[in-house]
Amino acid sequence: MLTVDFIGAGNVATRMATGLHRSGVKVRHIASRSTESARTLAGATKATAVPIDSIGRGASMVIVAVNDDAIRTILDMAQPQDNDTVWVHTSGSVSMDVFDPMKFPRHGVFYPLQTMSRGLDVDWSRVPLFTEGSSAETESMITDTARLLTPRVTHLSSDKRRQLHAAAVIGCNMAVYLWSLSETVMREAGLDFEMMRPLLEVTLERTRSLPPTEAMTGPARRGDLHTIEGHMRSLPPQIAGVYGFLSWEILKIYHPELTDRI
Amino acid sequence: MLTVDFIGAGNVATRMATGLHRSGVKVRHIASRSTESARTLAGATKATAVPIDSIGRGASMVIVAVNDDAIRTILDMAQPQDNDTVWVHTSGSVSMDVFDPMKFPRHGVFYPLQTMSRGLDVDWSRVPLFTEGSSAETESMITDTARLLTPRVTHLSSDKRRQLHAAAVIGCNMAVYLWSLSETVMREAGLDFEMMRPLLEVTLERTRSLPPTEAMTGPARRGDLHTIEGHMRSLPPQIAGVYGFLSWEILKIYHPELTDRI
Repeated sequence: MLTVDFIGAGNVATRMATGLHRSGVKVRHIASRSTESARTLAGATKATAVPIDSIGRGASMVIVAVNDDAIRTILDMAQPQDNDTVWVHTSGSVSMDVFDPMKFPRHGVFYPLQTMSRGLDVDWSRVPLFTEGSSAETESMITDTARLLTPRVTHLSSDKRRQLHAAAVIGCNMAVYLWSLSETVMREAGLDFEMMRPLLEVTLERTRSLPPTEAMTGPARRGDLHTIEGHMRSLPPQIAGVYGFLSWEILKIYHPELTDRI
Repeated sequence: MLTVDFIGAGNVATRMATGLHRSGVKVRHIASRSTESARTLAGATKATAVPIDSIGRGASMVIVAVNDDAIRTILDMAQPQDNDTVWVHTSGSVSMDVFDPMKFPRHGVFYPLQTMSRGLDVDWSRVPLFTEGSSAETESMITDTARLLTPRVTHLSSDKRRQLHAAAVIGCNMAVYLWSLSETVMREAGLDFEMMRPLLEVTLERTRSLPPTEAMTGPARRGDLHTIEGHMRSLPPQIAGVYGFLSWEILKIYHPELTDRI
């Protein structure tokens, strides 16, 4: 029977352990810096909270679901009990090389492309999971486990995973930053950001039939310098700076002749 | 009975005329630089295609739904037939002052916060419409007409409408630009942008309970310079430039002490 241990009891560990538990996987042990979090998650998955150096005993797989910066420290502290146990981390930006092959002969990566938050349940069937393994056999074991959570499983090397993670930061985190600027401007005009939601939803939906590189619209895409100048005059300085920079980048691609003239 | 004429037969005019026609408004005349487009839209709304100088005869309202840059030219060409007719444009960035009050004594703005595309039908009930009028009476007539399309009608002055439009460009058009960069990076890694969709959908949904200014995550928000540097090394130069600029802007807000050290 497939048995899984967890190091970490934060958002990712919680969503992943709960998802695997629901899919019939035996979640055996949970270790966390916070004993209380470990106990809570253990309670929810019929597992046992244990100290970190007990993790891995008899487990097919150990999932290290902690902050990127903590992975190396945690792996130093861990005491693998069995050479057959597969150790994976869940990070998008940390290379598989973080595992010392002498200490962890079977290792790999188990990276879900999704934001996990405490309040929001995860529909695992829609989450793409990217896997990597230290050998074909290990990779195949990791992939089989991933398929218990979601059909969307893809092998990805550490280099390409880093690219994917950068793409996610640009397309998601930085889009949220632009939404936050938008929210600030709307608030100054006495308007609620909720009014922008239908536009954003329709636009995201539209990229199903028209990919983003083709779906682009707006004054910079059209080369409408008059509107760009009007907007920049109406925006607070810090936001005008971001607006100007991004408009310039878009103009450089679609209207290079205009950037020569400015 | 409320009768409406249109100048323009593009995406906005088409969606608006069709929506008003469905709501029981009599769409009487359509004028467009393209006679064929005017005829097509007239056919769909039981209206008649006419030359621009015949527009407005007996109409309660004329909706000028043309490109921002063309509004002034079109208003110069128009021949208002009746001082009671209310003339409106549909632009987010053009001031109400574009109307000469001698020629158009009753005028205003009828601005929908939505992208209209030929292929995609519009659910008007979800579209926020922003109105402005040259007098209280005119404003009220415009608002009543807007309410036939959607319950989400808000009065907005030209200045605030320009701010809203800038907010929409930042939050929507520029987010699409970031998605297009994300798509480019994913394509280079052999991945399909569709894989990013669940993440973007969940993130947008999440801003219902957690507004964007609070929902922000990612390496710059966390002050994780190590990941930022790793990403920048893995990105093509133009995209790394945008990534670096936006990371810097986010760091300035949330981790100013780090920008002093770099």
